[in-house]
Amino acid sequence: MTEFELIRRHFATLAPGRADVVLGVGDDCALLCCPPGEALAVSIDTLVSGVHFLPGCDPAAIGHKSLAVGLSDLAAMGARPVWATLALTLPTGDGGWVEGFAAGFAGLAGAHGVALVGGDTTRGPLSISVQVHGFVPADHAVRRSGAAPGDLVCVSGTLGDAGLALRGLLAGNSPDDWLCGRLDRPTPRVALGLALRGVASAMIDCSDGLAADLGHILEASGVGAELELQALPLSPEVARAVVDRGDWTLPLTSGDDYELCFCLPAAALDRLPGLASAGGCGLTVIGRIGAGPGLVCRRPDGSSLDLVRSGFDHFAGEGG
Amino acid sequence: MTEFELIRRHFATLAPGRADVVLGVGDDCALLCCPPGEALAVSIDTLVSGVHFLPGCDPAAIGHKSLAVGLSDLAAMGARPVWATLALTLPTGDGGWVEGFAAGFAGLAGAHGVALVGGDTTRGPLSISVQVHGFVPADHAVRRSGAAPGDLVCVSGTLGDAGLALRGLLAGNSPDDWLCGRLDRPTPRVALGLALRGVASAMIDCSDGLAADLGHILEASGVGAELELQALPLSPEVARAVVDRGDWTLPLTSGDDYELCFCLPAAALDRLPGLASAGGCGLTVIGRIGAGPGLVCRRPDGSSLDLVRSGFDHFAGEGG
Repeated sequence: MTEFELIRRHFATLAPGRADVVLGVGDDCALLCCPPGEALAVSIDTLVSGVHFLPGCDPAAIGHKSLAVGLSDLAAMGARPVWATLALTLPTGDGGWVEGFAAGFAGLAGAHGVALVGGDTTRGPLSISVQVHGFVPADHAVRRSGAAPGDLVCVSGTLGDAGLALRGLLAGNSPDDWLCGRLDRPTPRVALGLALRGVASAMIDCSDGLAADLGHILEASGVGAELELQALPLSPEVARAVVDRGDWTLPLTSGDDYELCFCLPAAALDRLPGLASAGGCGLTVIGRIGAGPGLVCRRPDGSSLDLVRSGFDHFAGEGG
Repeated sequence: MTEFELIRRHFATLAPGRADVVLGVGDDCALLCCPPGEALAVSIDTLVSGVHFLPGCDPAAIGHKSLAVGLSDLAAMGARPVWATLALTLPTGDGGWVEGFAAGFAGLAGAHGVALVGGDTTRGPLSISVQVHGFVPADHAVRRSGAAPGDLVCVSGTLGDAGLALRGLLAGNSPDDWLCGRLDRPTPRVALGLALRGVASAMIDCSDGLAADLGHILEASGVGAELELQALPLSPEVARAVVDRGDWTLPLTSGDDYELCFCLPAAALDRLPGLASAGGCGLTVIGRIGAGPGLVCRRPDGSSLDLVRSGFDHFAGEGG
């Protein structure tokens, strides 16, 4: 099967049509209409076999996740997703794998009205690069740099689930379906991101782990923060793991949760229930922005956790 | 060195600034201003080590080429390049390699005023995906589908040089610098593509080889073509190789030349010198579009070349 057939069969027909796609897959470039008065938001991310997913992972899950990580970046800017492009590098022209991958990709694309407008398929070690495109009025985009002392630090959903699932899989266990779903099929918080336009002072998605991702907000904003560890939203599974091991690295430094971490002016606290409802997910206040530099994590007994000893590898995982 | 440092050090500072970049590398997404009244043209391409370039290839050449293939796609639509994103997968955080790559990438980006606005750096087998972004008034974009019977088939530059260089390298020879440059540092015909807006009836860039690429025009346009092999523009090196071996596969089926193949209404023939001047490259009429299907290649003696026996692998190399 040639790459043209691969792409045509599995992608071109599965992607939803959009009126703003003048010309989609099949020419030298896609041609796209941009709405007047809004900024184009773009992000590109790569998933590599053995680095971002385990070899043998369900191709439909890989298809879902390869788009989800980009949609999560759009969500973290408050952007409305519209288009995606896909660069797929495959060891062989494996039709079954491509079919599964395409189904996972198309399922999430369809749910968010995202059209696949271009791609490239090449031979090589399995990896997937997806660029997502969205729109947001430039002055409503939520950057990392707007956090101010006194703002509340909030997070959506629960933290550490994906890390716990990965830990279980690497140990040869079989984590339950819910936990595996948190790793393999993360939910990009697109509706929440849109609801936080013009409300959140700063935002980022938790792809590298809360401490690192919040750290980017602190660095970009020139502020510090203090978190209350007992306030972190944890699933029962992660809460048990934290208690059993007595360490907080799972919710603080394991990545891949794709929840949104955002800062909220304290005066907007009463909007939290409405935002949670709009976003279709739980929202939790976990701490507060301060003027001093760095991140302080308070244990329930008031002592401070040493984050340096919870270090991890920055190299993989950051969208730009 | 973390990926953040890699990206910041070598890319963020090298890319030219543009007034239409509201927010570049360093947040969840880049934020970009689209000019009103024009269509956004995008194309994504991946280069994989051992597939699209030889292991050990000069990283500056890889940096140049990874952007050039995308700019060539923009040229083939008649689009003006503006931004690029880069997804770089590296076996190790090799600072020297990244520095060379960035220099090659930035050199070509600067020459075309292209800003690097986002990226992702991951660990894994060496591969590079670049998405390019350009603008063109939608009704001036040159598609593959507009060729009509009677149109002249034209091509820029010379054909088969990159294939001859690759053949030499694979045989353990040392092709001369000019020939290696044609393989490693192709020149995207951006100025020519702009000049052909509203003039060419159909256009494509020669990435997979003339026969395959012209074949895409013929298929998309529902026409056929007849080429005169003696009219093909050949460098002295390729001309010698064709004569020595008595076969035409080098200019017809070897890829990577990144010349533009376009169709021109016969009435526009007298514009060719002006277009060549605007494009800064030679332009040659090599055949004519006909109503019947398929591609016929006439030898100097009037006999027809059997293209089926000059087959090659479609899988790698197509931008979408």
